[in-house]
Amino acid sequence: MTEHTFNQPLGGNEMPRFAGPGTMFRLPSSEATDEIDIGIVGVPLDIGASNRSGTRFGPRSVRNESVLVRPYGMYTKAAPFDSFQIADIGDAAINTFNLADSIKIIEAHYDNIMAHNIKPVTVGGDHTISLPILRALFKKHGTMALVHIDAHADINDSMFGEKECHGTIFRRAIEEGLIDPKKMVQIGQRATGYSSEDFQWAIDQGVRVVQAEECWLKSLTPLMNEVRELIGSEMPTYLTFDIDGIDPAFAPGTGTPEPAGLTSPQALEIIRGMYGTNLIGADLVEVSPPYDTSGNTSLLAANLIFEMLCSFPGCIRR
Amino acid sequence: MTEHTFNQPLGGNEMPRFAGPGTMFRLPSSEATDEIDIGIVGVPLDIGASNRSGTRFGPRSVRNESVLVRPYGMYTKAAPFDSFQIADIGDAAINTFNLADSIKIIEAHYDNIMAHNIKPVTVGGDHTISLPILRALFKKHGTMALVHIDAHADINDSMFGEKECHGTIFRRAIEEGLIDPKKMVQIGQRATGYSSEDFQWAIDQGVRVVQAEECWLKSLTPLMNEVRELIGSEMPTYLTFDIDGIDPAFAPGTGTPEPAGLTSPQALEIIRGMYGTNLIGADLVEVSPPYDTSGNTSLLAANLIFEMLCSFPGCIRR
Amino acid sequence: MTEHTFNQPLGGNEMPRFAGPGTMFRLPSSEATDEIDIGIVGVPLDIGASNRSGTRFGPRSVRNESVLVRPYGMYTKAAPFDSFQIADIGDAAINTFNLADSIKIIEAHYDNIMAHNIKPVTVGGDHTISLPILRALFKKHGTMALVHIDAHADINDSMFGEKECHGTIFRRAIEEGLIDPKKMVQIGQRATGYSSEDFQWAIDQGVRVVQAEECWLKSLTPLMNEVRELIGSEMPTYLTFDIDGIDPAFAPGTGTPEPAGLTSPQALEIIRGMYGTNLIGADLVEVSPPYDTSGNTSLLAANLIFEMLCSFPGCIRR
Amino acid sequence: MTEHTFNQPLGGNEMPRFAGPGTMFRLPSSEATDEIDIGIVGVPLDIGASNRSGTRFGPRSVRNESVLVRPYGMYTKAAPFDSFQIADIGDAAINTFNLADSIKIIEAHYDNIMAHNIKPVTVGGDHTISLPILRALFKKHGTMALVHIDAHADINDSMFGEKECHGTIFRRAIEEGLIDPKKMVQIGQRATGYSSEDFQWAIDQGVRVVQAEECWLKSLTPLMNEVRELIGSEMPTYLTFDIDGIDPAFAPGTGTPEPAGLTSPQALEIIRGMYGTNLIGADLVEVSPPYDTSGNTSLLAANLIFEMLCSFPGCIRR
Amino acid sequence: MTEHTFNQPLGGNEMPRFAGPGTMFRLPSSEATDEIDIGIVGVPLDIGASNRSGTRFGPRSVRNESVLVRPYGMYTKAAPFDSFQIADIGDAAINTFNLADSIKIIEAHYDNIMAHNIKPVTVGGDHTISLPILRALFKKHGTMALVHIDAHADINDSMFGEKECHGTIFRRAIEEGLIDPKKMVQIGQRATGYSSEDFQWAIDQGVRVVQAEECWLKSLTPLMNEVRELIGSEMPTYLTFDIDGIDPAFAPGTGTPEPAGLTSPQALEIIRGMYGTNLIGADLVEVSPPYDTSGNTSLLAANLIFEMLCSFPGCIRR
Amino acid sequence: MTEHTFNQPLGGNEMPRFAGPGTMFRLPSSEATDEIDIGIVGVPLDIGASNRSGTRFGPRSVRNESVLVRPYGMYTKAAPFDSFQIADIGDAAINTFNLADSIKIIEAHYDNIMAHNIKPVTVGGDHTISLPILRALFKKHGTMALVHIDAHADINDSMFGEKECHGTIFRRAIEEGLIDPKKMVQIGQRATGYSSEDFQWAIDQGVRVVQAEECWLKSLTPLMNEVRELIGSEMPTYLTFDIDGIDPAFAPGTGTPEPAGLTSPQALEIIRGMYGTNLIGADLVEVSPPYDTSGNTSLLAANLIFEMLCSFPGCIRR
Repeated sequence: MTEHTFNQPLGGNEMPRFAGPGTMFRLPSSEATDEIDIGIVGVPLDIGASNRSGTRFGPRSVRNESVLVRPYGMYTKAAPFDSFQIADIGDAAINTFNLADSIKIIEAHYDNIMAHNIKPVTVGGDHTISLPILRALFKKHGTMALVHIDAHADINDSMFGEKECHGTIFRRAIEEGLIDPKKMVQIGQRATGYSSEDFQWAIDQGVRVVQAEECWLKSLTPLMNEVRELIGSEMPTYLTFDIDGIDPAFAPGTGTPEPAGLTSPQALEIIRGMYGTNLIGADLVEVSPPYDTSGNTSLLAANLIFEMLCSFPGCIRR
Repeated sequence: MTEHTFNQPLGGNEMPRFAGPGTMFRLPSSEATDEIDIGIVGVPLDIGASNRSGTRFGPRSVRNESVLVRPYGMYTKAAPFDSFQIADIGDAAINTFNLADSIKIIEAHYDNIMAHNIKPVTVGGDHTISLPILRALFKKHGTMALVHIDAHADINDSMFGEKECHGTIFRRAIEEGLIDPKKMVQIGQRATGYSSEDFQWAIDQGVRVVQAEECWLKSLTPLMNEVRELIGSEMPTYLTFDIDGIDPAFAPGTGTPEPAGLTSPQALEIIRGMYGTNLIGADLVEVSPPYDTSGNTSLLAANLIFEMLCSFPGCIRR
Repeated sequence: MTEHTFNQPLGGNEMPRFAGPGTMFRLPSSEATDEIDIGIVGVPLDIGASNRSGTRFGPRSVRNESVLVRPYGMYTKAAPFDSFQIADIGDAAINTFNLADSIKIIEAHYDNIMAHNIKPVTVGGDHTISLPILRALFKKHGTMALVHIDAHADINDSMFGEKECHGTIFRRAIEEGLIDPKKMVQIGQRATGYSSEDFQWAIDQGVRVVQAEECWLKSLTPLMNEVRELIGSEMPTYLTFDIDGIDPAFAPGTGTPEPAGLTSPQALEIIRGMYGTNLIGADLVEVSPPYDTSGNTSLLAANLIFEMLCSFPGCIRR
Repeated sequence: MTEHTFNQPLGGNEMPRFAGPGTMFRLPSSEATDEIDIGIVGVPLDIGASNRSGTRFGPRSVRNESVLVRPYGMYTKAAPFDSFQIADIGDAAINTFNLADSIKIIEAHYDNIMAHNIKPVTVGGDHTISLPILRALFKKHGTMALVHIDAHADINDSMFGEKECHGTIFRRAIEEGLIDPKKMVQIGQRATGYSSEDFQWAIDQGVRVVQAEECWLKSLTPLMNEVRELIGSEMPTYLTFDIDGIDPAFAPGTGTPEPAGLTSPQALEIIRGMYGTNLIGADLVEVSPPYDTSGNTSLLAANLIFEMLCSFPGCIRR
Repeated sequence: MTEHTFNQPLGGNEMPRFAGPGTMFRLPSSEATDEIDIGIVGVPLDIGASNRSGTRFGPRSVRNESVLVRPYGMYTKAAPFDSFQIADIGDAAINTFNLADSIKIIEAHYDNIMAHNIKPVTVGGDHTISLPILRALFKKHGTMALVHIDAHADINDSMFGEKECHGTIFRRAIEEGLIDPKKMVQIGQRATGYSSEDFQWAIDQGVRVVQAEECWLKSLTPLMNEVRELIGSEMPTYLTFDIDGIDPAFAPGTGTPEPAGLTSPQALEIIRGMYGTNLIGADLVEVSPPYDTSGNTSLLAANLIFEMLCSFPGCIRR
Repeated sequence: MTEHTFNQPLGGNEMPRFAGPGTMFRLPSSEATDEIDIGIVGVPLDIGASNRSGTRFGPRSVRNESVLVRPYGMYTKAAPFDSFQIADIGDAAINTFNLADSIKIIEAHYDNIMAHNIKPVTVGGDHTISLPILRALFKKHGTMALVHIDAHADINDSMFGEKECHGTIFRRAIEEGLIDPKKMVQIGQRATGYSSEDFQWAIDQGVRVVQAEECWLKSLTPLMNEVRELIGSEMPTYLTFDIDGIDPAFAPGTGTPEPAGLTSPQALEIIRGMYGTNLIGADLVEVSPPYDTSGNTSLLAANLIFEMLCSFPGCIRR
């Protein structure tokens, strides 16, 4: 066996895939420390979701299915575990009875992660969690670029009178200056809304919105070339991936599925297309295990998280 | 066909069971009005739950499976739809992003129901909902007797720092004087707790606690005779039935199941044993459809709600 | 290996249980012939069912799960495959678009079975199928005794205007003289009906009706002693077992489940208690595989069919 | 909130999506009246189906999942609820024990709908239901054009000797002159048949048959341009959409799935491509909830029904 | 919070139940060390199973569902985490392609555990694993007493020619002198076998066999009094609990279910009845998660493992 | 009905699809005899699988779902049952406790099949089974060409120390000279590996590897033209199709799914593209029914097996 500098996923020839620690990719678990380059974090919140619940079990389930992921990308030739010190740094202890309190807990949790200069890759949980994460990252990085994959725009002003829940977060993030809307791209929005204004507010701020219809039957590699050109390689960039951006055929286990979305090859093209940006964090949200009877949505999510690791600047390709 | 004075469930020979309106027992839906004796109410809350979520779909699912319930009890000979004007009076519009706000919304919703002198039979939702319901009923009835079926005592002082969620409600209800603990009986508590004090606070207040172990292999009819003796036939009495009081073999679709609980015959014995008390309202909570793959937990719940109707004072037996 | 006179189930040490022929107990399949004592028959009808469908897949699914059944009863010491020539004689080719036509097809199918003096053990299919089976058996045996396990009485005069469907068959069977109501016992009826008359017609004809409530927490061996006394050992006796007689905890996969039914030990006691009667045929109906997510309802049904084989007169015990 | 002239779906900010009335899109329910432009109708029939059953629960399940559909098409900019008075006008009370009788009941049910000049949008049920619907519509509109999406041609002369069931209906419709075969297009047929004649009868009548293979990896917008050219904008045109036209990856919950079908983007292209024809009615059939473990087939169906509403002549785009 | 001497399960008020480490009861994970009194071990083997597979996921799934178990027994008043140092000591790295090799790996794994004087509580995995565990324990303890709960006797001489698999292990254990058959009790055996000899070999060696039929409708506390009398409080005693000893209504997720088994209250009575013996190890085997659609079989298993902890000698009751 | 020379699938108008024999396509079952041209064989092995188990139920489940397949290809116009004598020749009696022994049993089983000059079409079972099949075929045909569809290369040198299991077989097949690597094409490999060498060994031997990424959004008909050119029409050619080559959206029920795979249209293009080669056998492996909640993976597999029949040399097209 090769000598490794960094943490390695526990291999399938050392411990059968269906056993071993319940961490992401069967990596070592760790507190947040200065030695860690990238930390995998779970945020098991689902009380910010408006339709089906269940994403509270997302982190556990994605970790469970991540056992099949191996350390090397066969097509990209990326080797993230030879490039970075990566660890599973556990879960944020959200308050499942109180959304507003949970948003504060999450921000504090990421303040600590940022204090150790860890780049967080988060598995949700409903999409609400991206807001306190961005707030914490903003304190270190300032205004960020954002690539946002989702069936929905998540730019409602409020839902049921609430200003902070899974459908309002990117309006808040733009209003608070966390995100530069001119460096923000939304991909995969579709289906039905309350009015034509549903996507318009973002467009008016300068966000580029690429509806799902524009993606049908196309490789998204050209789009990602444009995205990288727009954002550049310097600006701190965050990637937020709502699994419902992908069609329910590929990702059935989610809370607000919409038909005719992205394919899983397109999802890979998008995440792989982030390589070349100054990616400083990413999240994968809205996997709802009770609606994922085969486990394959969690499995897809685990693979997308692996691809995220491969797109951080400095990831070796060999 | 007989002439009926009151609303009747839509019969299976008029409209196939798998069709027709999506109301409880396919009864007419109605606003709350003074003509209604008993109103079926849905409270689709699940953000007060500490483990699995999903009870937000409880009201819809129990209504769906209620189509199999017919209007007459074959063993009790009870005929509730010939005894009372019963309607499905719809759902409380809880705020799914805010538990504290939802608790207020629910209380106001039941204030309105009480203003019409309707006896509410509620389908949840998680157990949190019983607290605002009891608060509304207290304004009309004063301190009430309570029969509480549940795997858990729900008398924590707080959970994760919160004073009002599905595990604390009966401590609140006793503290606020809504319930007379000396006229309160808990049945079915079991399994594990944090310490021996978990059940003790209630016992110290005078509550009678009948652990599941005391119920194994026994008819509960004698127990219910004692319960009726304790409560009497005058005191306004509320029945709160957490489906997890029943063993997961009979009721798998719930969020915090505990092994070795009550059987469904015992559940019927308890509810039937309420006949003779001055029942003024009841609820059936904690059915979680995502964990109920056959639909049979919802079906059981619908039957238990039918049995509740049969136990209101004045229900004809023929 | 012992020399056997009769067909034997394919053993788990000859062919793994999850493989081999798709017949009941992995017995040889056969046309109906004079050599066969007992024939297992599938009748895949579900268009006589009033609520959930799916029993059309009952025969296939019960056969699939029957692979776990071995040839000897460990408690009864019964050895049916050493006592009788038993074969899987295939399915009746019902017309799935036409219930009335199917009823005729089934009767003709059993006329042929009776022409070979085969005792039929049938797996349904919805309960409608028992009527044409009884009609065919009547031609040979004359008026029969009947033991009927079911959550429902199945004695409606009509359903949705139809005289022959799964809820009317035993009224028809009594009216036509196929069954002597004074030698008929119904066990397990419960839950709700349209009026007190729902069970009364049968009682008025002399049928003994043992509601589920009378069975709770009791061994049914004493009841079966009474049943055998009532019927005697001479009168041709048919056993019809609707799986919904058993509680949905034990048998979730069925179309019109009712709570608080028989337990599976009680089901065994009933079938074992038929030994000593002049059993001339039996059926097991209403298993609906789409609602049986674990396969265990079909597995239970396969075991009940094995126990039926053990209760035919002449079955050796050793 | 805007003043609306017409019925509006109950919004997610007024009542959480998982609650509220069990009608399609949570619209008001109504009898058939002259005020209604488009009526949503359920026809819960499944005894015309030849393989898996379960579509009897289609209307209920599609309504349940329709709660996620909002009133405005984000890509088409269509606003059907600002264009038409739309209501859920309930279910046809089919006779689940008698297919021939049900076909008559359905025709009479639609005769009444047509008497009120309501354009029906139907959710099935198995495909048999389209025949009596077309018979009723023919009385008002005369011979119609037809766009038929399906994995199968449904032009058998008979099945198991029956002339009217889910595989024969379009032969009947052409023979009876309900449909002009030269204005009929079939899309998505594929897989296996009994002989090369299976599709030929329709082709011989002048029907255009577009097999699934011709659709692979293509936008169907050009095809729909041709379809609109063929049919024109005047001829009364009916759209019948069997969910099994779509690949089982996107629509697993159906009774006779065939591999390698249409994608859900193609399904949207087809229905959106109907805009410009004189659409006078539509149906969505063959959703079988017991085989739809995530609910997502019903959700897709609800979205397709929304898109149908958007394609009726006069639907505003803004 | 109280000061604790020993490891405590992570509490639900510190980290929501659906998050935190994937260990049993969310205990700390640890290597085997001399400080540990009782070690929880996973053995994810399923290639020794003869019917349905899937128990390889047993350890992971039981750990997942164990999050609901709290540290104190409400009825027994047992406080195992205040009595012993308990840790999750991880999984044996079995060779999933080679049963014979796996049996050796397991024995070596437990040799190491015994070298640290840890009492092992194992979660399987199929029942084969008990044989190498007993071999390792024998080296320390000599011949042991055994209490064996199971639907099957597991005393075949061979299966498909193999001497060591899940149906032969207790014949091997007796032959090798690991177990004293006169101090061995089997409970719950039932259903069908190949011949009357299936249970006889054990009986001939002096084993007490309590068939399921002898347990129906009875408390098993008296039986356990007899068991304790037979075994005494000195002899090293092992408890092996096959989840299929329990009826499939309570424990559907298993590979060779048999109808009419023990109830979950009886399961508790048996394990609680072990208190007073010199218990030196225990296992819980044959949970097969793919057949456990609600997760409740794993949940029951986790509770049974908690009860095992409570029955080790020295467990405090308060 | 036409007179047929060869065995025909039992038609849906003779026996409803949900009934009849449990054989593939409801063909006659048969021993291996010289009259059979193509034999369908089941090999129910899953102990060679490294992640999820369950493929032991593959043969039964694919047969169950094959009832929907009719005898004629509507697009290819192929009529295999008019071209060849085809029968279901049953299952290999593998030893489920011993992988090495099973590999020998399978080889012997296929030796017998080859002795009758039957071309085998096999349904697995995990991919291990292809190795002993190739060994048996090699004795008759010598070195073969191979087309291999799979998410994985299956060319590990060993797994967990074992030389023969589902991830090593094609390295063994090339080493043993069963396959000419220069006439071998692998299609669909993707996702993650242990290092860049994972695919390299095969490439170094001359195998053509077509990663999934090269297939995205493309018809594979041109690729298959190249494949036929490479292999020619003379060389004995084997087709091995691992269902996980197809994307989990289309084929969720498998043990080691990987995202972003082939579509089912591409799967058909590949198999149809084999027509013109000298196909002498084929297999379809890795369907795992416990993870296939709708049955549609098995249904897809049954269709792929039908398409395999259509691609044997001499299959009539009309």
